[in-house]
Amino acid sequence: MAGRRRALYSSEDLAPLINPRSIAVIGASDRPGSLGARAMANLADFRGRIFPVSQHLTEINGLPCYRSILDVPERVDCAVLAIPSQAIEVVVQDCADAGVGSCVIFASGYAEVGSEEGIAAQERLRSIALRGGMLLAGPNTAGLGNLGTGAHCGFAEFPHGYAQRNGTIALVSQSGAVGLGLSQAAMRGTSISHVLTSGNSVDVDVADYLNALADNPAVDGVALVFEGLDSAARLEQAAMAMARAGKPIAVTKLGSSPLGAAAACHHTASVTGSPDDWTALFRRCGMVEVQDMSRLVETAVFLAKFRAFRKPAAVPAVSILSSSGGLGILAADAADRHGVPTPQPGKTTVQRLKDILPSFGSPRNPCDATANATSNPESILRCTEALLTDDQFDALVLLWGKAWRSPCFEGISELATNHGKPVCLVWMSQWSDGPGSTDVEKLPYVSLFRSLDSCMSAIRAWGAPHSFDTGG
Amino acid sequence: MAGRRRALYSSEDLAPLINPRSIAVIGASDRPGSLGARAMANLADFRGRIFPVSQHLTEINGLPCYRSILDVPERVDCAVLAIPSQAIEVVVQDCADAGVGSCVIFASGYAEVGSEEGIAAQERLRSIALRGGMLLAGPNTAGLGNLGTGAHCGFAEFPHGYAQRNGTIALVSQSGAVGLGLSQAAMRGTSISHVLTSGNSVDVDVADYLNALADNPAVDGVALVFEGLDSAARLEQAAMAMARAGKPIAVTKLGSSPLGAAAACHHTASVTGSPDDWTALFRRCGMVEVQDMSRLVETAVFLAKFRAFRKPAAVPAVSILSSSGGLGILAADAADRHGVPTPQPGKTTVQRLKDILPSFGSPRNPCDATANATSNPESILRCTEALLTDDQFDALVLLWGKAWRSPCFEGISELATNHGKPVCLVWMSQWSDGPGSTDVEKLPYVSLFRSLDSCMSAIRAWGAPHSFDTGG
Repeated sequence: MAGRRRALYSSEDLAPLINPRSIAVIGASDRPGSLGARAMANLADFRGRIFPVSQHLTEINGLPCYRSILDVPERVDCAVLAIPSQAIEVVVQDCADAGVGSCVIFASGYAEVGSEEGIAAQERLRSIALRGGMLLAGPNTAGLGNLGTGAHCGFAEFPHGYAQRNGTIALVSQSGAVGLGLSQAAMRGTSISHVLTSGNSVDVDVADYLNALADNPAVDGVALVFEGLDSAARLEQAAMAMARAGKPIAVTKLGSSPLGAAAACHHTASVTGSPDDWTALFRRCGMVEVQDMSRLVETAVFLAKFRAFRKPAAVPAVSILSSSGGLGILAADAADRHGVPTPQPGKTTVQRLKDILPSFGSPRNPCDATANATSNPESILRCTEALLTDDQFDALVLLWGKAWRSPCFEGISELATNHGKPVCLVWMSQWSDGPGSTDVEKLPYVSLFRSLDSCMSAIRAWGAPHSFDTGG
Repeated sequence: MAGRRRALYSSEDLAPLINPRSIAVIGASDRPGSLGARAMANLADFRGRIFPVSQHLTEINGLPCYRSILDVPERVDCAVLAIPSQAIEVVVQDCADAGVGSCVIFASGYAEVGSEEGIAAQERLRSIALRGGMLLAGPNTAGLGNLGTGAHCGFAEFPHGYAQRNGTIALVSQSGAVGLGLSQAAMRGTSISHVLTSGNSVDVDVADYLNALADNPAVDGVALVFEGLDSAARLEQAAMAMARAGKPIAVTKLGSSPLGAAAACHHTASVTGSPDDWTALFRRCGMVEVQDMSRLVETAVFLAKFRAFRKPAAVPAVSILSSSGGLGILAADAADRHGVPTPQPGKTTVQRLKDILPSFGSPRNPCDATANATSNPESILRCTEALLTDDQFDALVLLWGKAWRSPCFEGISELATNHGKPVCLVWMSQWSDGPGSTDVEKLPYVSLFRSLDSCMSAIRAWGAPHSFDTGG
């Protein structure tokens, strides 16, 4: 595909798609559950101008409808095509003629079906867009959402209530369902600025999205999921732009198994390529590969929250603090599984811990502050300070038996900042979105994990050579 | 320890502890936050008789207080000792003299400290109990809860709202914090009948608990966590009793790393033993070892829900069904990582799937029912039936992009029963306790997972030779 040899889109190039000031919904509808009604509902928070286009209605939600995109009185940044696939090609041509900046196409049945007709139809869409200088997201995409501006150009619901803070991540996913599923992390407090999906990626692909996010001040890091790209070099170039901006990328690559690769070909017509080649590329760019996607968001948030902290040792050493010996043992076992060193604290630290702990506590690594600490949060704060002060440790892993927000967490976040070392809070509960989850996620310098293995693998990856640590 | 050569306690032996009809709280208090007040509060749902013992109060919550356990007018099944460690020994002797059936001791500072005094003090408690024919839980324990009767003998809160159903599990944990953390699974819908912790296990240990649960009709399976036992043979004997009863055990063994083993010695004075020896024992007994404890409860519930289903192949094969190609690819990759075969459906099945799916769907394995299925749950039901009918598959893995309860789930649970094959529903969302979680957990023949790796590793373990499948 000749188009793929073009340069990456910049944030300015992609602005009509990622940060549109005006959006037309073609096929706007008031029929509950229809694509057109859902696309309209998703724009409820959008602060820009909305132009519904409908052949049947004259008005929706108080907005006048237009019969065609050609009738809209201004050049629209983004057109969302909530129409059956038979009508797509004519409408895409209309959009190009109307000087629309970008098109989002949900419809399926293109290259992913594998038929000659599907491939040809997709290629025609690409040509129309290219000639018209119009960006194209999809086809076969769930769309994209800018959660800061409310520009939610999709048929499924994107999360609401975004507020910028340290550790904000963007989700970039080829698969719409994957991007939308991950975006529910916002419901438990993760700060997500964008959910960008690309589907068949006939024009805009995940590499373009990454490149455009590199200079976006709202974004501290990215969680990336994709199946394949026809130019690995473009991904590498985009990842290096992110690295130069000091922004980490955690990535789950789909299609690492033969069956998965075959399914990817059926899904978005992607050639997944050799898993080893991709892993090598990820390493070159300092991207952190996460196989178990349920750990992807926690890993991305951890890397994003602490990106401005000092570079750790290649293999970061951690101290472990808990109010339960059993939890400490589990953490020591998990550190061992992931090759994370857990040295013993120095003499001064041991003495400081002894002064804080009851006689049956354990001034070691793992440090057992005993169940006494559950009714004495001050002792947890003092142990945290003692362990963060010790030069041997790059980070602190703090274990919490149940899901709840302790009054000491704010102070712990402050201590982490003062010492320039991450604190990873691990909820050893099965109530992973339990009380206080959203508040804890908001702490600027505490990273919340729901599994020790998720935590320890993230810490291990943090220490690996990262181009985003060295600035190049 | 000579006591450890005794036979395992039976359910009848342990009844005064696990299923008490009367409970004395020694050190009962109305001071908010105190151990004594918390122990009283935890008995709010208890249907048996409660005897508060206090040196200061004459009445608590309308119940008369006794100055000593010796003043209580009946032989109490269980005494909960919410008193400082200095007073423990005298009170344990009083309990023995009063003919109390069992004692629960929270206090720390015994063998786990490693001091001669601590070891000697613990040994004295054991002797008093042994001579008096009184069971002893602890010391250094968080206590135990019978969630069916409300006999919550602990200082921390156990979950409420238990209702028996298929797939009910008991939690058995040496560490109190671990047991309590896992018990929060009840908040997202897991049916938990008992939370039994043993602490220093001077008398009753996790092997006794297992043995006593084998013939408990409320219990379909157990999630077990422990650090060490001074008699592996007793655990093996108890696990075989569970196996004979057809009840699976999922186990996380603490202290598999050198540092973890050292910490275990500090924690409950446990000698953790060689990890390989334990793994060999688990295999002999058909216990399923789970390293990542965040997957333990899901694994135990899965094995418990489907324990009456037909025995699968040694390596069970699965079909994968989703409404998103991306999710299907991820599942295929995860199956590959865990060695779970994913054969292609037979010709008849392919034809049935073709008749159900739109032209751009994928009548393969993984089966992509496309986003159309999200608004057409009937097609998911029909695909489920087609795939469960195919003899090649031992189970179905159904992927769900977001956390929500579909109206088709009840029907899917019925199909699973009719075909005698498990359906594993995997929520590919980061909102793991999202809307509908508690309802979905209640479905008798659908197992909910929050990660593909958790699901595939459970399926792989299900196929391994299990003594609980063969009845011996």
